[in-house]
Amino acid sequence: MNATDIGPSSSSRKPPLVGVLAVVGVGLIGGSFAAAIRQAGAARTILGAGRRPQTLARARELGLIDEAVTLEEAAARADLILLSVPVGATGPILTCMAPHLQPGTLLTDAGSTKSDVEQAGRAALGERIGQFIPGHPIAGAEASGPEAACHDLYRDRTVVLTPLPENREADRRLLRRLWESCGARVVSMQPEAHDKALASVSHMPHLLAAVFMAQIAAAADSELRMTLAGTGFRDFTRIAAGSPEMWRDIFRANRKAMLGELDQFRSALDQAEQSLRDDDDQGLYDFLERAALARRLWGSRSRL
Amino acid sequence: MNATDIGPSSSSRKPPLVGVLAVVGVGLIGGSFAAAIRQAGAARTILGAGRRPQTLARARELGLIDEAVTLEEAAARADLILLSVPVGATGPILTCMAPHLQPGTLLTDAGSTKSDVEQAGRAALGERIGQFIPGHPIAGAEASGPEAACHDLYRDRTVVLTPLPENREADRRLLRRLWESCGARVVSMQPEAHDKALASVSHMPHLLAAVFMAQIAAAADSELRMTLAGTGFRDFTRIAAGSPEMWRDIFRANRKAMLGELDQFRSALDQAEQSLRDDDDQGLYDFLERAALARRLWGSRSRL
Repeated sequence: MNATDIGPSSSSRKPPLVGVLAVVGVGLIGGSFAAAIRQAGAARTILGAGRRPQTLARARELGLIDEAVTLEEAAARADLILLSVPVGATGPILTCMAPHLQPGTLLTDAGSTKSDVEQAGRAALGERIGQFIPGHPIAGAEASGPEAACHDLYRDRTVVLTPLPENREADRRLLRRLWESCGARVVSMQPEAHDKALASVSHMPHLLAAVFMAQIAAAADSELRMTLAGTGFRDFTRIAAGSPEMWRDIFRANRKAMLGELDQFRSALDQAEQSLRDDDDQGLYDFLERAALARRLWGSRSRL
Repeated sequence: MNATDIGPSSSSRKPPLVGVLAVVGVGLIGGSFAAAIRQAGAARTILGAGRRPQTLARARELGLIDEAVTLEEAAARADLILLSVPVGATGPILTCMAPHLQPGTLLTDAGSTKSDVEQAGRAALGERIGQFIPGHPIAGAEASGPEAACHDLYRDRTVVLTPLPENREADRRLLRRLWESCGARVVSMQPEAHDKALASVSHMPHLLAAVFMAQIAAAADSELRMTLAGTGFRDFTRIAAGSPEMWRDIFRANRKAMLGELDQFRSALDQAEQSLRDDDDQGLYDFLERAALARRLWGSRSRL
């Protein structure tokens, strides 16, 4: 009898890290967390909650969750709860769950901004704020919904945790181990540092791609332009197709950091435009070379 | 005996569209043209010319070209010549070839801008300008060099021709058929319309991605930002890794159209920023929705 005949792998024979996991919002992000946790054997039971009954039914059919429950049931039964909902919904959902939580239940989230989520958490949970560790898995895909969920979405991806002073050390450790069991690399930082960095590398690209796309769509020769667009255009604008609702919420939640980044971007744009206007060959070359070297370095280091 | 036993396919038994093809610059673009023309059986012999002997030797090893020749030989022997060189090199190369050209030789190019290429062509070729039909295959890839060349690079891609009043109708038809034999869709337009549209859908994305990348690289917390960059960042900035030399030349050659596009982009950016600053939810949502719908429509129509 060789290793492949033993049945459950050695990792799944260890006791699971948590008994009952509840995922609120079983789309791409929440569904993939459920799938990864199940694959790792890191939870005994996985509950799902959310707005749309048909999404929960689909998640159950797909084997992402064992059972669809209400927010109240999830709060009462779970040992760990992951919220993967639009950031604007974090406060209302936590408010709804708060009265039903067990003293030992650990909460986390997957929202793209962290300062506002911390604020919403404090308002909703009050004295129980120590049970909430905000987080942000930096992963995504073009597709959405439970069908798009995939157990290796988080493999080699970065998950940021922005723990609060009130969190217990054991809870921080547990959450870190759970994300690591999904294949992720976990880093901890202050919510403001997270929001500033994300404004730069995630929210600004979205804003710029959307502004660019809206500008082309409004041009008189829009049809002709679109016909001549190639693969550079395709990649540069891909993110502009994302949900307007979700991105409006993110921009709003991270407005201060984004306005700061916009200032920086405008300065850099002014400088490049000036080189172009002045026919300053060396200036143009130097700026393009700095950009190319930085992008190539990132490409060689990142696993994306 | 069924059709598959006949041997050479019916298309390759037709007489080739041209006798001798010469490709100047046997990298990705020129090498892929050579490979596609060979695959289609559209030329009897393929010559290669270019700056670097080792690139030509490699192109020959790879079977892209039959023979490496000098510019003068290429001019004297070819029925059709494709220049796939940086746009700034078009004038000097045509000047060098002009005295050796046969009266029936047809010339074309693959440069990303067309008004300046026409100008360079007129200056270099004088009375022979009717032998030159400027063109621009809208295709590319991250990799470069003859190794990256591929016979299906142009399949389902758009090739723009900007014919001159002096061109013969038979030559226009021949060039169109050659590109079609590579699987491309050919459209004809005025050089100014091409340059304006390309400034918008190709050169602006490159400028914006490079400005954005240079701005991040210059930030004090650049390292942290890069660590948190995900797949949206990856796609949005991919083109910023391109050759600084090539893009400087393109920007210079198409400066007027780019400065116009920059004005338009700035207006759209101002408007989006104002909505963000004013916390104008509806304004933000509307602009993001216009962008998302335009991008999704393009995605559903394009074959990219």
